[in-house]
Amino acid sequence: MRITSQTTSDGVSEHLFTLDDIPGVIWSPSEGTAGRPLVLLGHGGGQHKKAEGLVARAHRYVKDCGFAVAAIDAPGHGDRPKVERHERLVADIRQRVTQGEALGSHIARYNVALAEQAVPEWQATLDALRELDHVGGPVGYWGASMGGAIGVPLVAAEPRITAAVLGLTGHESLTEAARRITVPVEFLLQWDDEMVPRDAGLALFDAFASREKTLHANPGRHAGVPAFELDSSARFFARHLLEDGGPAEVEESSARLDRS
Amino acid sequence: MRITSQTTSDGVSEHLFTLDDIPGVIWSPSEGTAGRPLVLLGHGGGQHKKAEGLVARAHRYVKDCGFAVAAIDAPGHGDRPKVERHERLVADIRQRVTQGEALGSHIARYNVALAEQAVPEWQATLDALRELDHVGGPVGYWGASMGGAIGVPLVAAEPRITAAVLGLTGHESLTEAARRITVPVEFLLQWDDEMVPRDAGLALFDAFASREKTLHANPGRHAGVPAFELDSSARFFARHLLEDGGPAEVEESSARLDRS
Repeated sequence: MRITSQTTSDGVSEHLFTLDDIPGVIWSPSEGTAGRPLVLLGHGGGQHKKAEGLVARAHRYVKDCGFAVAAIDAPGHGDRPKVERHERLVADIRQRVTQGEALGSHIARYNVALAEQAVPEWQATLDALRELDHVGGPVGYWGASMGGAIGVPLVAAEPRITAAVLGLTGHESLTEAARRITVPVEFLLQWDDEMVPRDAGLALFDAFASREKTLHANPGRHAGVPAFELDSSARFFARHLLEDGGPAEVEESSARLDRS
Repeated sequence: MRITSQTTSDGVSEHLFTLDDIPGVIWSPSEGTAGRPLVLLGHGGGQHKKAEGLVARAHRYVKDCGFAVAAIDAPGHGDRPKVERHERLVADIRQRVTQGEALGSHIARYNVALAEQAVPEWQATLDALRELDHVGGPVGYWGASMGGAIGVPLVAAEPRITAAVLGLTGHESLTEAARRITVPVEFLLQWDDEMVPRDAGLALFDAFASREKTLHANPGRHAGVPAFELDSSARFFARHLLEDGGPAEVEESSARLDRS
């Protein structure tokens, strides 16, 4: 892993890195201790490691929970070269949009192809991140839409991830992996999602083998997840990744940081 | 309204009252200002105004959010005389349990009979509570199971209630009222509920006309709502009933109270 730049803003350090040919970023509190919990962020389709929503989420988790947070560009996204096979699938999807076709299975096929490459990349990234001084605690994963479709097989395959927020996805190609997931899951579903059929999302939630899993469904389309779900996800990760992660402790830590 | 006793414990004042023949209780911070938001708690079937879970919930809302909180005994419950018509319905339900029958429509018929009486009682209670010095802000309602089945027609009928946590119920007899509800709703559903079919719960969530409604579904049976949903409901009410109810403000207020 090679660190290519380091900046600090609003109490949050941001290190850009490359690992082999994967560009990534890690955010962490600019001051503090070693051995922090780490939350991995999986961006959506067409987005990248520093998409606006991802940066805001990372800052929130760093400042409110004291986590380290990392993101990488998915194959064919952000600063990475296009992948011919993926580009053909995306072109196919665009053409079907034009023709007004239902897309569920086409997007799912694209996501399966992507996940085959993305899962081992995330695992290699996790190996490298765990070598850093300021990372060392438990690991969480957040990913919705394409980040959710990659997240399901990743969380199923990776025992170091002990809590996950997933969502905005659902397809039979994910069922088998979902059945192997036993860690706590918070699952986001948009009630009027134009890209993921409601029943497919509910079926994926049903498939998780986790003793603790919680479905958060809200009205609106695919991209319309309400802002309060960011707050909820921070609490979910705090509950599961911080040793003293009960609600009172999170509130205290958060309030202290808000005042500083 | 006649106050029959007053005690204080752990910073929470508890006043027992009767209004006509309805026994009730109001909890509030033992020190503080007038014009507090008020949260009404609707207890479950066979329970009463001071059931253990209700008292714990009331203390949480008082201490973390600074709310006043009130509960009354539902018709035929707690300190109230049995209602012959209700008793016959309950006996019928018990017999059908013994025979292993599905119960959805029988419980729903009982709840409809109960709600006919309980809704105007809640409205009269609200009239009286609003006369008290320490109450005067916006009003929320929390009720699950029987408290949810009463809550749906109550929230539909009562414009003073501006946010509601409902759940553990679902039946076509509630659909019409649900369609008239437009205030923010957090809705609890138990994924493996032995008393409420999953599809009936999902259909009730679907029926709410609220622009903001959020479904929280968790694994487990009817009585197995996880403890973290209490935390979530406190945040939901804080967001909607406190003027400065954003997450940061709630965290500060909560942390301050935890330390005091």
